[in-house]
Amino acid sequence: MTGDNRTPVTVIGLGSMGRALAEAFIDVGHPTTVWNRTPGRAAPLVAKGAVRAETVVAAAEAAPLIVTCLTTFEDTRSVLEPAAAQSSGRAVVTLNSGSPAGARAMAAWVTGCAARFLAGAVKNVPAAVGAPDTLLYYGGDRTVFDDYEATLKALGGDPVHLGDEADLAALYEMAVGATLLPALVGFFQGAAAVQARGLRASSMVRFAGKWLDMIKTLLPVYAKEIDSGDYTVAASSVNLFLAGEAHDADLAGEANVDISWQAPLYDLLRRAAQEGHGEHSISALTEVLRKPESHRA
Amino acid sequence: MTGDNRTPVTVIGLGSMGRALAEAFIDVGHPTTVWNRTPGRAAPLVAKGAVRAETVVAAAEAAPLIVTCLTTFEDTRSVLEPAAAQSSGRAVVTLNSGSPAGARAMAAWVTGCAARFLAGAVKNVPAAVGAPDTLLYYGGDRTVFDDYEATLKALGGDPVHLGDEADLAALYEMAVGATLLPALVGFFQGAAAVQARGLRASSMVRFAGKWLDMIKTLLPVYAKEIDSGDYTVAASSVNLFLAGEAHDADLAGEANVDISWQAPLYDLLRRAAQEGHGEHSISALTEVLRKPESHRA
Repeated sequence: MTGDNRTPVTVIGLGSMGRALAEAFIDVGHPTTVWNRTPGRAAPLVAKGAVRAETVVAAAEAAPLIVTCLTTFEDTRSVLEPAAAQSSGRAVVTLNSGSPAGARAMAAWVTGCAARFLAGAVKNVPAAVGAPDTLLYYGGDRTVFDDYEATLKALGGDPVHLGDEADLAALYEMAVGATLLPALVGFFQGAAAVQARGLRASSMVRFAGKWLDMIKTLLPVYAKEIDSGDYTVAASSVNLFLAGEAHDADLAGEANVDISWQAPLYDLLRRAAQEGHGEHSISALTEVLRKPESHRA
Repeated sequence: MTGDNRTPVTVIGLGSMGRALAEAFIDVGHPTTVWNRTPGRAAPLVAKGAVRAETVVAAAEAAPLIVTCLTTFEDTRSVLEPAAAQSSGRAVVTLNSGSPAGARAMAAWVTGCAARFLAGAVKNVPAAVGAPDTLLYYGGDRTVFDDYEATLKALGGDPVHLGDEADLAALYEMAVGATLLPALVGFFQGAAAVQARGLRASSMVRFAGKWLDMIKTLLPVYAKEIDSGDYTVAASSVNLFLAGEAHDADLAGEANVDISWQAPLYDLLRRAAQEGHGEHSISALTEVLRKPESHRA
């Protein structure tokens, strides 16, 4: 049964991402059972061929593969709790954000139900689910990944098994996701500066997109520097970034924009320079972000 | 003469970006004169067909189009100062970082020399210069852009004239560039967290690149929200981002990573929530970044 289009799947949690997951399974022909605390959410999926389970117990019983998409691991556990006995022998795949610690606690609970556990990260917008270049990654029970890899491909073209530890997807999701909020705040600051000149924020989108493409090309270079610990070949040095601070202050003054959120970033640059990294690659900031061993919590 | 491949061009400032610019002109057949404070930098370009000018005066006299690529506007002015008289009647195009105020001061000086001025932003790595999808943008004298658009295409496939104000490229470069340092610090934090588990930073590059692609898809959506001032349709709300703070702290604790630089970002989120934007789109942070009129410097 496993691995082909007829593997029955249950999807629990029908927010915008959960609905996208369920639709992706339906689209490639999996018998799909859905359940949500608010039953109305299931209607558009039922119209496409899904079966709405009346209870979470019935949902768990409907398929060997239970995919959950709730907000947190805590939510997921409390939703699955009534179906603990029925989960036995099945595979539970979670797709939600959370900390590695949350993923480990979830793994303990799922394996305590005699179910197999795989924790994945979607790390994308619902519209990207099912696209061939969408990348989903998982950590946890390798047998679940192997049994259902073909099924999981419905959600994105290229599922990756990071390793047997159930918290790896959460670790990578958080590590990767750490660029989002700061990058967006930078973009919003830029938008406010452009608008202060009477120009539309939309007018900078084309350039900002190209800029993200450029940043993307830097990541493998910086990762290599960080892995080697050799920061001496500096395409862009710590001091070069420090030189930008005065310009930021100039523009903030004339555009009337609050850039105080950047102060700790420049403090990090100054600390790096003080520690001898001034002419080193900007990636040397990684060393400053690592707390000294003696200060470990 | 203007606009075809035989337009003579002078490039002043032969750092890694300046050399890339000069090479791009040489590659498409422009007679190219180069000058640098440290003359040795010119040698590889001379080997490719460039002429090395002995003085900045000779460099300025060699072409109707003078492209400078120095570190700052102040540098550029002090380098060009001895050639002020010889710049008269020529077009000066600067390609360096700087603030809008710096660009305006530069424009005043160049036009004071009876030269025409266009200030551009490269906003990319030297390796991207000359690539068809490289985007360079300029502000300032439209006649310079029109006269030399074909020539400037040698540097990137699609030059854009933002408007007649000489500081527009600096404004856009800074607005667009504001994502870089914060995004990189986020990436370095993620790298430190992954390394704390004994994994290589390089192992997250693939996922981090996809994540930047995803962020890119968000920018036009957020720009539209910012331009309309309507933040009520929230794909990702301020409160959703606030919910991530506890997970960040969890992971930082177990990975022994300093995330204190993020504190002001979460303070911005809390201020936005206090001002009624909790369930609004994260792009509502733009409103919080704008200083009230009464506090204008």
